[in-house]
Amino acid sequence: MGTGGEVLIPASGLECAHRVPVPPSRPFLETFRANLKETFFPDDPLRQWRHETAASRRFLLALQYVLPILQWAPSYTFQLFKSDLVAGITIASLAIPQGISYAKLANLPAILGLYSSFVPPLVYAMMGSSKDLAVGTVAVPSLLLASMLSREVSAIQQPALYLHLAFTAAFFAGVLQMALGLLRLGFLVDFLSHATIVGFMGGAATVVCLQQLKGILGLQHFTTATDLVSVMESIFTQTHQWRWESVVLGCGFLFFLLLTRFFSKRRPEFFWVSAAAPLTSVVLGSLLVYLTHAENHGVQVIGNLKKGLNPPSLTSLVLSPPYMMVALKAGIVTGIIALAEGIAVGRSFAMFKNYHVDGNKEMIAFGMMNIAGSMTSCYLTTGPFSRTAVNYNAGCKTAVSNIVMSTAVMITLLFLTPLFHYTPLVVLASIIISAMLGLIDYDAAIHLWHVDKIDFCVCIGAFFGVVFGSVEIGLVIAVAISILRVLLFVARPRTTVLGNIPNSNIYRRMDQFPVAQNTPGMFILQIDGPIYFANASYLRERIARWIDEEEDRLKVKEEDSSLQYVILDMGAVGSIDTSGISMLEELKKNVDRRGLQLVLANPGSELMKKLDKSKILETIGQEWIFLTVGEAVGACNFLLHTCKPGSVLDEACTSAPDNV
Amino acid sequence: MGTGGEVLIPASGLECAHRVPVPPSRPFLETFRANLKETFFPDDPLRQWRHETAASRRFLLALQYVLPILQWAPSYTFQLFKSDLVAGITIASLAIPQGISYAKLANLPAILGLYSSFVPPLVYAMMGSSKDLAVGTVAVPSLLLASMLSREVSAIQQPALYLHLAFTAAFFAGVLQMALGLLRLGFLVDFLSHATIVGFMGGAATVVCLQQLKGILGLQHFTTATDLVSVMESIFTQTHQWRWESVVLGCGFLFFLLLTRFFSKRRPEFFWVSAAAPLTSVVLGSLLVYLTHAENHGVQVIGNLKKGLNPPSLTSLVLSPPYMMVALKAGIVTGIIALAEGIAVGRSFAMFKNYHVDGNKEMIAFGMMNIAGSMTSCYLTTGPFSRTAVNYNAGCKTAVSNIVMSTAVMITLLFLTPLFHYTPLVVLASIIISAMLGLIDYDAAIHLWHVDKIDFCVCIGAFFGVVFGSVEIGLVIAVAISILRVLLFVARPRTTVLGNIPNSNIYRRMDQFPVAQNTPGMFILQIDGPIYFANASYLRERIARWIDEEEDRLKVKEEDSSLQYVILDMGAVGSIDTSGISMLEELKKNVDRRGLQLVLANPGSELMKKLDKSKILETIGQEWIFLTVGEAVGACNFLLHTCKPGSVLDEACTSAPDNV
Repeated sequence: MGTGGEVLIPASGLECAHRVPVPPSRPFLETFRANLKETFFPDDPLRQWRHETAASRRFLLALQYVLPILQWAPSYTFQLFKSDLVAGITIASLAIPQGISYAKLANLPAILGLYSSFVPPLVYAMMGSSKDLAVGTVAVPSLLLASMLSREVSAIQQPALYLHLAFTAAFFAGVLQMALGLLRLGFLVDFLSHATIVGFMGGAATVVCLQQLKGILGLQHFTTATDLVSVMESIFTQTHQWRWESVVLGCGFLFFLLLTRFFSKRRPEFFWVSAAAPLTSVVLGSLLVYLTHAENHGVQVIGNLKKGLNPPSLTSLVLSPPYMMVALKAGIVTGIIALAEGIAVGRSFAMFKNYHVDGNKEMIAFGMMNIAGSMTSCYLTTGPFSRTAVNYNAGCKTAVSNIVMSTAVMITLLFLTPLFHYTPLVVLASIIISAMLGLIDYDAAIHLWHVDKIDFCVCIGAFFGVVFGSVEIGLVIAVAISILRVLLFVARPRTTVLGNIPNSNIYRRMDQFPVAQNTPGMFILQIDGPIYFANASYLRERIARWIDEEEDRLKVKEEDSSLQYVILDMGAVGSIDTSGISMLEELKKNVDRRGLQLVLANPGSELMKKLDKSKILETIGQEWIFLTVGEAVGACNFLLHTCKPGSVLDEACTSAPDNV
Repeated sequence: MGTGGEVLIPASGLECAHRVPVPPSRPFLETFRANLKETFFPDDPLRQWRHETAASRRFLLALQYVLPILQWAPSYTFQLFKSDLVAGITIASLAIPQGISYAKLANLPAILGLYSSFVPPLVYAMMGSSKDLAVGTVAVPSLLLASMLSREVSAIQQPALYLHLAFTAAFFAGVLQMALGLLRLGFLVDFLSHATIVGFMGGAATVVCLQQLKGILGLQHFTTATDLVSVMESIFTQTHQWRWESVVLGCGFLFFLLLTRFFSKRRPEFFWVSAAAPLTSVVLGSLLVYLTHAENHGVQVIGNLKKGLNPPSLTSLVLSPPYMMVALKAGIVTGIIALAEGIAVGRSFAMFKNYHVDGNKEMIAFGMMNIAGSMTSCYLTTGPFSRTAVNYNAGCKTAVSNIVMSTAVMITLLFLTPLFHYTPLVVLASIIISAMLGLIDYDAAIHLWHVDKIDFCVCIGAFFGVVFGSVEIGLVIAVAISILRVLLFVARPRTTVLGNIPNSNIYRRMDQFPVAQNTPGMFILQIDGPIYFANASYLRERIARWIDEEEDRLKVKEEDSSLQYVILDMGAVGSIDTSGISMLEELKKNVDRRGLQLVLANPGSELMKKLDKSKILETIGQEWIFLTVGEAVGACNFLLHTCKPGSVLDEACTSAPDNV
C-alpha cells in the first residue's frame, strides 16, 4: 500500500492522480482504547493528571477533580466574596418563599422547602463545577413527585409514609444521577431534545399554574388529577366555594410580581426588584393577614413551622417492598428530569462566562447532593433556572453564593420560622404562577416552527401530552418521539446526486446548486452520513433505485451516452460497520451485473481499513478509488474517450504497482 | 440571495470564489410530504401507478401490488413449471421430516408440522414477492415458543390449551407482522444488526442441538430449561437412563446426514443428495424399527398421525385473559424473529438473481400467511434458510415450487400419514442437529473479528446470552446492545482535523493522510455526520477542546503564526435540527470570544436553509461561507497576508451584494 499523496503520470498519459492509502492497522487494544476514550471521555478529564509525575501533586489533582472547591478556594479573594454575598442574599430572599411554595406543590410540609435549601447547596458548593448554578427545589419535579406518590399513598391519611417516600425518591434519584455520572453516561441526557424540553416544560408550567387555582380561589377540595379537563371541571363544579378575599389577594400579588418581573426585564440593572419581590409579597401578605385576621375569613395560612435545623432522615428511608418500588419509580423519573434541567441550566450560564462545565462531574455532584439531602430531611433538588438566573444577574462569582444562601436559610430555620405563621397560601400560589409563566417559552416554540417543523411537532406533542394527559404521559410521549426521531435519522441517511459546478473541478449536490450539471456517462451519488446495520439495507435498495431512475431518464432522453460509471462520494461516510461493508459488496455485485463500473471517491480512513480487511478492496479494485470526485471523473472521462472501461486504467495504474 | 455558482473577482483582487446559495424555501407541506415519502416509502411502490391513468388498469395494478401472483402468472410457461416441479418435490421431501421434527421441538403434535407446510405456502405463493423463498416452520422460533408457553402451561398436562395457545401466538405474530408492513415500519427490523443475528442464531442453534440430546440418548425425562448448564446437569445425572440402541441409531443417521451435506457442498450439482437425505433416513429409520420392533427396546417412535387435512382452528384461538397475554408475548417475540429471518433470507436470495424484494410487502405476506395458518391448525411459519437454499439449488423459478410442495404435503396428509407411525424420534433429532449445525456460522464470527471488533463483541454477547442464559435473555441482550450501539453512533460523530495535500488544493483528514500538512494560522475541522440534539452538546464541547489543544500546540511550538481562523468543513453534515443550529450559534460566540473567525465550508442545502431561517446566517456572515475548504483557505490566506481579519473580505464581497 502506497503512502498516498504523491502524483504520478504513467506512460498511458492518464493521470492516476492521488491515491487513497489504506491506513496502517493499529493493534486492536490501542484502537479499542482510543474509541472507548472518545466515546466515554471526550472531555479528557485526566489531561493535567497525565502531565503530572509527582504522586503528591497527582493526589491533589485527583482530590481537586472530585472537589472542585479545592481548585478555586485558595485563590478566593475578598473582592469575590463581596459579589457572592450580595448574590447569596438575593437568592436566599427568593429561595425561602419559593422553597415553601414548591414543598406545598409536592404535598409536603412547608418546612421541607427550607430544609432543602440548606444542606444540598453546601454539598454542591464543594462538588459542583458551575460558578452560577443556584441549588434548590424545582416546581415540575415537585408536582411530578406528588402525582406519582399520591397514586399509592395519600399525603393526608399517611403523612409520615408519604414523607418517607419523598426522601427515598430523592435518595434513588441521587443514586441514579451519581451512577450516570460515574458510568460516563451523561450523553443519555442529551437524548431529551431541546424541542422536547421546551414543550414538556411549557406543558408542566401550565399544569402547575392550573394547580394554583386551588390556592387562588381558596378552594378546600380539589382534584388530584393534573389534566386541564378535570381541573376545569373541579373548579366550575364548586363555584359557590370560591372565596373573593383570597381571589382579590392572589390577583393583587400576582399583578405585583408580574409588574416587578416586567420592570426588571426592561431595566436589567434593577434585577433585585423582581428578585426581592417574592419575599416582599410574603412579608406584606403575612402582615395583612396578621392585622386583618383574614385567616378567619377563608384565607388559608401556612401555620406553624417547626424551629430548628434539618433532622436526620437516614433511618426513615423506605428500602423494602411494596412502597420501595413506588419511590424507585418516582425517583428515576424525577431524577432524570431534574438532571436534565440542572445540566442544561449549568451549561447555558457557563457559556455566557465562557468556562466549561463537565456534564458527568455535574451529575456526580447532583447525585451526592440528593443522597446527602435524602438523609437530612430534604427532597429532590437541582439547579432551577429562575434562581440561577437571579444568581447570575446578582453578579455571583463562585459557588460561595450558594453557601451564603444556605447560611441565610439556616438563620431563618433557627430564628425566623414563626414569622411565616401568618403567610397566606394564596401568596405562595401567586409566587408559583409568576415563576411558571416565565417557563412557558412561546418564542422558542415559534422559533421551532420557523426553523424545523418536525421539532415543532415534537414540542407541541409533548405540550399537549402534559396538559391533556398527565405529566408522565407527556414525558413518555416526548421521549418516545425523540428516540423515534433518532432512529429515523439513523435509518434514513440522505443520498443526493452530484453535478459539476461550471468552469470548475467541483462537484456538488444538484438539488442545492441549480447551476450544477450532469456529467455524461457517469452517475455521481453522495451518501450523507455513516453506514451501518440500521440503514445498510435501506441504502442498498435506495442506491439501486437511484441507478434505475437514472437509466430510465437516459432512455427517455435517448442520450447517445449511456451510463458507464457509478461514482460514490464517500466523503460523508464517517464510520461503517460490517453490515455497511457487506452492503457495499452487494452494491458492487449489483452494479457489475448492470455492466457498470463502481467508483469510490474520498473514502475515510475507517472505510478504507475495513474495505481492506474484508478483502472487498480487491473486488472493487484499488485503482477505482480516488481522492476526489473530480479526479474520479477525470479518470473515467479519460477511459470513456479512449477505450472500453477497465483495461487501460488497470494497466496505467497497475504499471506502478507500489502506488496502488 | 444569488443563484450561486458564478465566479466574481472584486476590485480588491480577492477572489470570493463560488458562493453557497440559500435554497429557495419550499412550502411546508411539500417538504413534509417529500420527507414522509423518503422515510416511509423509499422504494416508491406506486411508481407505475402514477403513470397509469385508466381506472381499470389502476385497479389491476393495485390488485397486482397486493397479489404479486397476478403479475407473473399470465406469463407462466410449462418450461418454468418443470423446474418448479422438481424444486417443489425436493423441498417437500425435506419439509415433511423437518416439519415433524420442529413440531416436536415446540412440544406440539407431530401432525402440526405437516399442517404448517400445507396452508401457509399457498398463501405466500399468492402474496409473496420472492421467487425462491420456501415457506415452513423454523427451529429457533419453535424452541422459543415452547420455552415461553411451557412457563405458563404444561404441554403434557394441558395439551389442548397448549395447542390453542400455539395457534393464538401464531395469530398475534401474523397480526404484528402485517401491522409492521402496513405501517411501513419495516426499517425497525433492520435494527437487529447482522452481527447480532449471527450470534443469536449460533447460540439458538447450539441450544436446539443440546435439546436433541434428549432424543439421541433416548431419555424420558428432561429439563425444561434451555441453558447449557442445566441441560448438561440433567444429562449426566441420569447416565443410567441412556439407551445405547437409540444412541447408535442417532449417531449413525447423524453421520449419514452430515456426510451427504458435506458431499453436496463439495459438488453443488448433487444438491439433491443432501436434500433427499432427511426423507431417506426417515424411511430407512422407519423400516428398521418396523422390522426389528425396536420401539419395544427403548427407541421412541412418532406413533399415530391423524389422516386428513388441516381442521379449522379459528374457534380455538384464546382471546381472553389470563392466557391471552402469554400467547401475545410469545407471538410478538417469535413473530419478530421469524420476520427478521424470513426477510433476510428472501433478500439475500433475491440478490443472487438480481431482483428486488419489497420488505414491507413481504411483511404483509408473512402476516397474512400466519393469520391464515392460525385459523387452520398451523403454528408460526416463515422462510427458513435451509429449505430456501435447497429450493434455490433445486432450480426453482417462481413461488409455484411452494404450491407443488404444499400439494405433496396434502397428498401425504390424505394418504401417507400411517407410514410415519414407526418413524423413530431419534432420526428426527439427528435431522434437526444436522440442520442446526449449518446455522452455527463460525466463518461469519471470524470475519467479524477481523473487520470490526465491536461487532464481534455484540455477536459473542448474543451467543453467550442464549447459551448460558435463555433464548429470550440472549435476544434482549442482542437488541439492547444493538440499540445502545446506534445511540453511541449517533451521540458521537467523528471530528477530524484536515490538512493540505501537498501541491494540490485538496484538504483531507490528517490522521488518514500522513502527507497532509497544517495550514499556518488556520485550524480546519471536519464534522462527520449529521448534527442534532443527540450529539449537539458533545460536538460543542469537543470542538471547543480541539481549538484549545490547537492553541496549546501552537504555544508550545512558539510558532510565529498564531491561530486566526477556524474553518469547519460541513460537507458531511447531511441533516441538522434546531439543537444543532443553536450549537453552531454558541460555537460562533465561543470562537468570537477567543478573537478568532469562524468560517464554514461546503454546507449542505438543509444546513443553509436552517442557518438562514434561524437568522444565524447573518451572525456568521454569508461572506464567511465557502463552497470548498480550498477556497476558504484561499480567502483567509489573502486576508492574513494583507490586513487584519474581517474588514477587507467584507468590503470585497459585500461590494457585490447581490452575489452574497
